[in-house]
Amino acid sequence: MYEFIPVIMREAASIMLSAHDTHFSMISKEGQANFVTRYDVAVEDFLTEKIIEKLPDAVVIGEESDDNHTELISTRLCIIMDPIDGTTNFIHDYRYSAISVGICDRGQMVYGAVLDPYADRLYHAERGGGAYVLDYRTGKEKKLQVSDRALCDSLVGFGTSPYRRDELGKVTFETAYQLFMTCRDVRRSGSAALDLCNIATGALDVFFEYSLLPWDYAAASIIIKEAGGIISCFDGSDIKFEGTLSVIAGNKLAHRQLIESKILK
Amino acid sequence: MYEFIPVIMREAASIMLSAHDTHFSMISKEGQANFVTRYDVAVEDFLTEKIIEKLPDAVVIGEESDDNHTELISTRLCIIMDPIDGTTNFIHDYRYSAISVGICDRGQMVYGAVLDPYADRLYHAERGGGAYVLDYRTGKEKKLQVSDRALCDSLVGFGTSPYRRDELGKVTFETAYQLFMTCRDVRRSGSAALDLCNIATGALDVFFEYSLLPWDYAAASIIIKEAGGIISCFDGSDIKFEGTLSVIAGNKLAHRQLIESKILK
Repeated sequence: MYEFIPVIMREAASIMLSAHDTHFSMISKEGQANFVTRYDVAVEDFLTEKIIEKLPDAVVIGEESDDNHTELISTRLCIIMDPIDGTTNFIHDYRYSAISVGICDRGQMVYGAVLDPYADRLYHAERGGGAYVLDYRTGKEKKLQVSDRALCDSLVGFGTSPYRRDELGKVTFETAYQLFMTCRDVRRSGSAALDLCNIATGALDVFFEYSLLPWDYAAASIIIKEAGGIISCFDGSDIKFEGTLSVIAGNKLAHRQLIESKILK
Repeated sequence: MYEFIPVIMREAASIMLSAHDTHFSMISKEGQANFVTRYDVAVEDFLTEKIIEKLPDAVVIGEESDDNHTELISTRLCIIMDPIDGTTNFIHDYRYSAISVGICDRGQMVYGAVLDPYADRLYHAERGGGAYVLDYRTGKEKKLQVSDRALCDSLVGFGTSPYRRDELGKVTFETAYQLFMTCRDVRRSGSAALDLCNIATGALDVFFEYSLLPWDYAAASIIIKEAGGIISCFDGSDIKFEGTLSVIAGNKLAHRQLIESKILK
């Protein structure tokens, strides 16, 4: 039903990949390390225009929009998008960023797609249909399944909530350290969307970040669920899509053990 | 002069990429999270056999060898290799590992090559000839140049020294936290070789790890230097290739500011 979305996302990816001057295209936004480039804006405008052509009644909730009506999420069909998830990586040409598009129908995610334009891999899921990764280079598609590792054997992804570092930096690194001492190792990639897709593939076993916004996790949340995993608030309650949240995700075993460990503050 | 090496490395990469059961191919090594798979061993054996055919007098110093004669490094032609840098990533299919091969002539690096088989990109440098990244997918090659960012604008890569976590875990995360509060953000990828190549490309601006071994940084060290960057011990003194070292790298400005910051313990 939403097969047109990845086609549009790949066109948008060519805008990203054509960027040669990311370092010089920064536009300021509020907060330290909260950058937006003219490519973020161009990708969001392109996605919005093309998707609205197909879904004219949908409400767009996007990272770069100034007038997001998140209060409509529970009653309307919404497109929740992050044009470039991992903007700091993009500015540094670190080659680890994604385009993230989720469809939320009256508060319930029905479709999610996350495109890694550097690897040319698409993670996607439709409600009830399983989750998949498509490698455009080989044309091969694989069904996704979360890992079955326990917390002690886990590779743990985490985000640093850089926009709120004065408030959350200390607790973030204390948590990362304690998990490092408990588990196999930690990873900090700079793209929450790709970290969450790595939960779905089983490459990562758990993930935490103290502060995320709906466009960071909306699309990936359905990919994780359809891959047999779980994404929730720190206390295990369901995620919402209306404001800032502390988010954990993982396979069900490691996710439960993470909550029980009391490591999260 | 060493153009044959990347050809052999790409053949070795096909051994890595053919792996389907990395999770079940673990062989124990000493220490927590110090894994070796039968692919590590197969890649090292393959590289050793093929390179020694061309350089019969060279001494091989490899991560998976039991009888490394690092005392010969100062007097002989040595091949310093890591068959799979980022083995934990490899086991988890996290798709961020590299093959690293350096040539050291009587203590002086003369050639280095680091292959990322997932991105199919080769970072390489020959002494005095500059550093380059070759994208095999497009056939395009680009000269590498470190960034010119100051420490406060830096994206900082770090390693967690997982094999010595009881001793170094706490200081590693304290350092990472302090740098996070000083700079733009931090990244922890799980492959020192690729982190160091990202210093050479300018994607990362500084890097630190409290404990590395010669095969982790030998090949990348010449790539960084030829890209205009610097790699050293924590006090700024030259790296050696004989045992465990604390290593920092970066563009010259951020590297100097990192030492002057006194953040490193």
